[in-house]
Formats: sequence, structure tokens, C-alpha cells
Amino acid sequence: MNKPLKIAIAGLGTVGTGAAKAIVARNAALAARAGRALSLSLLCDRDVSRFAPFAGVATTGSLDEIIASDADVVVELIGGENGPALALAEGALKAGKHVVTANKAMLAHHGAALAALAEANGVGLRFEAAVAGGIPILKSLRESLFVYGVSAVRGVLNGTCNYILTQMESSGRPFADVLADAQRLGYAEANPTLDVGGGDTAHKLTLLASMVFGVKPDLDAVAVEGIEHITPEDIAFAREFGYRIKLLGIAKKTDEGIDMRVQPAMVAAGTPIGDVDGVLNAVVADANEAGPFFFEGRGAGECPTANAVVADIVDIARGNTSYPFGIPTADLTELKRAPGGSTKSAYYIRFDVIDAPGVLAEIAGGLAKSGVSIESMLQRGRAPGEAVSIVMITHPTTQGAVSAAIKTIAAQPHIIAPPCLMPMEAK
Amino acid sequence: MNKPLKIAIAGLGTVGTGAAKAIVARNAALAARAGRALSLSLLCDRDVSRFAPFAGVATTGSLDEIIASDADVVVELIGGENGPALALAEGALKAGKHVVTANKAMLAHHGAALAALAEANGVGLRFEAAVAGGIPILKSLRESLFVYGVSAVRGVLNGTCNYILTQMESSGRPFADVLADAQRLGYAEANPTLDVGGGDTAHKLTLLASMVFGVKPDLDAVAVEGIEHITPEDIAFAREFGYRIKLLGIAKKTDEGIDMRVQPAMVAAGTPIGDVDGVLNAVVADANEAGPFFFEGRGAGECPTANAVVADIVDIARGNTSYPFGIPTADLTELKRAPGGSTKSAYYIRFDVIDAPGVLAEIAGGLAKSGVSIESMLQRGRAPGEAVSIVMITHPTTQGAVSAAIKTIAAQPHIIAPPCLMPMEAK
Repeated sequence: MNKPLKIAIAGLGTVGTGAAKAIVARNAALAARAGRALSLSLLCDRDVSRFAPFAGVATTGSLDEIIASDADVVVELIGGENGPALALAEGALKAGKHVVTANKAMLAHHGAALAALAEANGVGLRFEAAVAGGIPILKSLRESLFVYGVSAVRGVLNGTCNYILTQMESSGRPFADVLADAQRLGYAEANPTLDVGGGDTAHKLTLLASMVFGVKPDLDAVAVEGIEHITPEDIAFAREFGYRIKLLGIAKKTDEGIDMRVQPAMVAAGTPIGDVDGVLNAVVADANEAGPFFFEGRGAGECPTANAVVADIVDIARGNTSYPFGIPTADLTELKRAPGGSTKSAYYIRFDVIDAPGVLAEIAGGLAKSGVSIESMLQRGRAPGEAVSIVMITHPTTQGAVSAAIKTIAAQPHIIAPPCLMPMEAK
Repeated sequence: MNKPLKIAIAGLGTVGTGAAKAIVARNAALAARAGRALSLSLLCDRDVSRFAPFAGVATTGSLDEIIASDADVVVELIGGENGPALALAEGALKAGKHVVTANKAMLAHHGAALAALAEANGVGLRFEAAVAGGIPILKSLRESLFVYGVSAVRGVLNGTCNYILTQMESSGRPFADVLADAQRLGYAEANPTLDVGGGDTAHKLTLLASMVFGVKPDLDAVAVEGIEHITPEDIAFAREFGYRIKLLGIAKKTDEGIDMRVQPAMVAAGTPIGDVDGVLNAVVADANEAGPFFFEGRGAGECPTANAVVADIVDIARGNTSYPFGIPTADLTELKRAPGGSTKSAYYIRFDVIDAPGVLAEIAGGLAKSGVSIESMLQRGRAPGEAVSIVMITHPTTQGAVSAAIKTIAAQPHIIAPPCLMPMEAK
């Protein structure tokens, strides 16, 4: 058997503690797979109480000590796109240590540079836990679904958003109430912006796009919209038309470049993505001639995420450390952003209006001016003069046309809030 | 860059030709991922016309010539559990060549011996294409979802059966008619027994079980039932109760051993497995604390299967050749078969009877004797004295109890055909 693999873990939060516990509790079974012993050599956290379950393992509060240690692999679970996490990853790679991380924010910003550093130092950089938790989606894209290329990848990548949308649907309650519940239950952070604003999904989408399209991670190329403005009415209307609202991350290859967007969308119920419930994550990879592949599982939580971290460590132990993004990092190209707005789709639009004579003419006029035609329309009766929602489904049109129409309409006197616009995925 | 990987392919049917074409057409992209050139060094088929698309590549009709050649990898796509395929795989491994194969029958019978031979000769044995076509399920189980172990794996593993069941559902037509259509369309073989009888699913299930439970492939441990006896009435009744009929391969760890069965089952519509349509394949792996993971995609056809073959070749090119079943082959244990019949489930039972006084008493008596109680019952009206189906859903009971009841009832005078029994998966 080869010599033991020494593992340092920085950051003993839920995932770090879970990974360390799995390595201790399942040591013999993991070693059998790895073909060598796995040894926890150093643990690092600012909170010394977190070392308690790991008696006998060396500990430190200093990241420099990790870099200077004899660890073969450094597991970075500190978080944050810059600062200590980045310093640790860079320092460890430069010191010839493999790095395993769940830090999607860091990789979305510095992924290409870190991958280049890993290659230059002949070590691995693995981050399965950064995208879709326990689902082995990055490995599958990197090592399996590349033969015919991938034309598009889309997914439900944020369990907090999907939980909130699922709860809004089942309870009929508004976003703010359901978010408050989710925070109480620990499904949403005290500061939920990164989740509900779509930023976390954008981080993950950036990494998926790099893995399938051979481009450098480029967070700025993602158009990001969150779920804060989704109302119970949107959800009720979706249901009426046989759809459900999901926050999707979508990266698509087009003739003009790569179109990347995070946006709530109407997805048909009864389709794989449409039926992803609660905190689950899911990804569809459209592998051209090989067809679409669908993956679903737990996208967060101690054990699913620790599973991804430990599997990365075992991969490294077995010597499977090549190219972080599947191809030599020097071959990763700059992402050319598609101008966007050229893909055709039907759209759902909600206008919040004062119910007064002329309001429908304002809307219809704006749509007609941009060449957008309406397939169906729904208005619930209220008293004249009150606020009311008018909901429309358009015939297939471009995001460019519908956005232009909405801009015109939003400036009209009876429109009392920015219209809500969502693409409708084909059934 | 490392030296080129020389690839010999034996068997230029759909998959072999597809794999060879992909290696030629995408050579540079594949080499970039592999970190070395991929070179088709030798093609073997009895039909020389199949060499036509590959001008300049050496060809042979002799498997011995492949074994004696300078190929680094031998791709076995001849098929058949023994005979030339086995001789080639054994010969190639003994000659120190890596082997990639899609041959589930050969592996279900000889998988442990071939894996041991691969390890003894320091080469890889890979067979992603043998299970669920393009879905990277074996790699995911072998290299990702092992940390917390897997308690059960189940799937829709035969596209022909799923196509037939889906068509029976949408058309209302009987099995034999739909099978004949499927044969005409090329979705079913001229001799369909291996598919519709469940044998092909059993081969694949055997390999999945070995991958997750660390046991030697043991085809004899699988209880196999096909779909030939499923009637349009079963499908109509399923729909009435919110279910769909799927041919499932199920391998489950129990306290008494491993329970492996291939059987048609009622699966709730709206669940991932219940919604697998047409020729698609799908697998659920229940990874204990990490939760269940669901995979869906094309399980057959040129490109999905060739994708799996070529991905295995690239894996080998990158040096990822360890343990075929994830752990050292010497650690694979003999499969201990669970006595079976102890897992509780509700059951669907169809009795084909002559509608005469006393028939219900015969059935009710038999069920009562085995302690099986009925949740709901359905009988469509026909004229007395004619054949009629009586359908029942039982309360949760063991397969042992319900099988005993059916055996008693089948011997009664008014029962005119062997009863049809299917477990109902929880909604």
C-alpha cells in the first residue's frame, strides 16, 4: 500500500466537522477504496471547542501553520471569496498541497487562477461540494459527459430558494413570511441576500459553465435575478397553467456566445426540473447526441456535502488529480457573452395596475409596439379603482422584445409596480 | 505529454462504430482531456464492410491478433457471456492490456474473476456502458456516493421494457401488439426474451449491487420476473390508483442479506422513477445519511453508449484504472442472499376468474388464511359465466404472505390463470 495521505481541514463548521467525522468513523472502508490510509493530520478553527470530537489530532488556529505543515491535502471550508480562504488555497497550492474546497464564491472569482496554480505545482484542485452538494455533477461533467460536448446546462442549484418557493406554493403565503419561517428552521441564513437574490446560484452556474464549455469562470457574465418579487399570485397563476416557479441557473451555448442567467422561470409540472421539491437540487446537462441527463439529490446539509468533500479526498488519494475544469487550464478561453435576448420563449408577465379605464390599452399598446402577442390573459375581479394584477402569457418571443415592451408599459400612469417577467419552459 | 494510448476495438456494431467514430472525429478534444493522444490502433470485426469509415486504421478478423497487438486498451463489444468475448477479455487482461466493455452478461457471470485478473496484471477494467447506457451511474457509485454507504439501489434499467410499458399505457393495446411494433421500429430484438423476461435488467442489477455492496457479482441471487404477463387492464387499474407500472431492478441491504429482484411494480406517478418515460433509464441510489440520488438519461443507442465507452477510455488514459468494483477485488465478499419475502409492502393482485357464485369466497378465503387484508377491490361488470378480472390492493404485508395466499387461491376451481402480483411503492 502507498503511504498515508495526510489531510488538514480548515474550518470546522457543519461540513468540515462532518467530513472529519466521516474520515475517522469510516477510516478502514475509505482506505480500502483509496488504496492507502487516510490520516487527519491537522485541524484548524478559531473556535477551539470544535476540536473536541477529534482527540489526538493536532490542531491550530493559524492558516500559515497548515501551509507549513506536512499535510498532503488541504481542505478549505472557511468560506468567503477573498481573505483567509483565498490566502490558504493559494498558499497550499504553492506549497505543493492538493486543495479540496466547497467555496463556490472563491472559485467563481478566482477559479482559473487557482486551477493554473494547481497545475503549475502538479497538484489537484477539487470542488465537488461547491455545486449541488452531494450530487456528483462536476465529476460527471468532467469525467463522463464530455464526449459529444454539452450544449446547455440548467438546474435548481439553491435549496433555500427552492424550499421557499415550494412552501409558498403549498401554503399560499407571501415570500417574506415563508422566508422568516425558513430562517427560524435554519433553511435560510440570517442575511438571506446571497441565496434569495440569486447570487449563490450564479456562483454555482459559473462553475458548471466552465466545466462544460471550457471557459474561465466569469461571474460577471451572469444575468442575475432573485425570487424576492415572486408573489403568491404568481404561484397560483403558474399552477392554473400547469406550471411551477423555480429559480433556475441556465448556461447555454449559442452562435453568438454563452448565455448565462439566473432567473425565476415557469417550469411545467410533471417534468423532472418542474418536480424538484423542497431543499433538493437538480441539474440537467444536455449532452448533444448523447441526450439530456438529469441528476437530483440533496444540495446542502452536513452529510451530502461532506460526502462530496470526502469523495474528492479519496479521488486525490487514488491519484485522480488532473485538470480542475477537465481540460488543461491554459486551454480555458475567455467567456464570450451572448448578447442575450435572442432566444425565443413564451413569457409570463404580471402587471400590478390600478383597475381603471384605459389600463388595458396602456398594456396592449406597449406590447403591440414591440411586436409581442398574447396567448392568454387572466384578471381577477376587484372593485374599480383598486390595485389588481393582470397576468398574461405571450406567444413565443425574444427576451429583448418583451423587455422593451415592459419598459414602455412600466412608464404608463396606471402601472403601480415593476412588472414581473418570467420565461415559460416548453411543456 | 505522455505517449499515445493505443486502442483496439473488437466488434463494430452500433456502439463500436460509434465509439470509433467519436475517437476519430473528436480526437484533439479528447486528447486534451486525456493528457495524451488517443490512437485507434486495430479494429476487429467479421464483417469487413464495417471497416470502411476508418481508412488507414489496421484491421483484423482475429481476436488473437488483438491480444498479440501493441494496443494498450482493448474495447470488447462482441457480446455474449462466454465464448469469444470472454476469451478476448481474459487474454487481453493477461497480456497487460486495459479492458473496456459494455458486456453486462459476461460481467454478471465472470465479473469477479475478470476484476481479479485486471488487478493481478495491474490494468484497468471499466464497464460504464454495461449499465444504464450513457448515465454515469457506475462511476458515481464507485467514485462519489460511497462515503456513507448505499442501503439500496433501484432502477429502470431496460429501455425496451420501459418503451413497451409506456406505449401500452398511451395506446391501451396489449403487450404482444406493442412488442411487435417495437420490433418493427428497432426498439426490441427479434428474440426479445432477454429484455422482456427481465434477464437484461438482472445482469445490470447484479453489477450495481456489486458496486454498492462490495459483493461478487452473483446473477443467481436475483429473483427475476418479466413484463410479458402485464395486461392493458393492469395498466388501466394502475392509472386509476395514481400509479404506473415499471419493470424495476431492486437491490436492497437487509439484516439477513441482500434482497435482489427484477419485477414489475406499481410506482406512484409524479415520483422520479414513476415518471421515467419511453426508452429512458433511471437509477435511484439511497446513500444513507447523504440521502437518495436520482439519475436519468438515455440507456441505449449509439451515442449514449459510445459516450460511456469513450469516457472509460479517457479515464484509463488519465491513469484512473483502480479497482473495477471500487474496492480491492480480494475484499469482495460472497453475496449472502436475503431469504426474501420479509419486506412489507402493499400489493396489487389481479385474479382472472370465471364470474360465478363462490369465486369471491375462494379468493377471500385464501387471503384470510395467509393473514392478508384488502384495502380496496375493483371488479368490472361482465355477464355471469364469463371471464373477468378482479383486482385488489392489499394492506401492507410481506411478499411471503401474499405469495402463499396466491398459491392457495390459484388452485381454486374458478381461477383460470396464474394471478398477477405486483408490489406498490409508497407514494
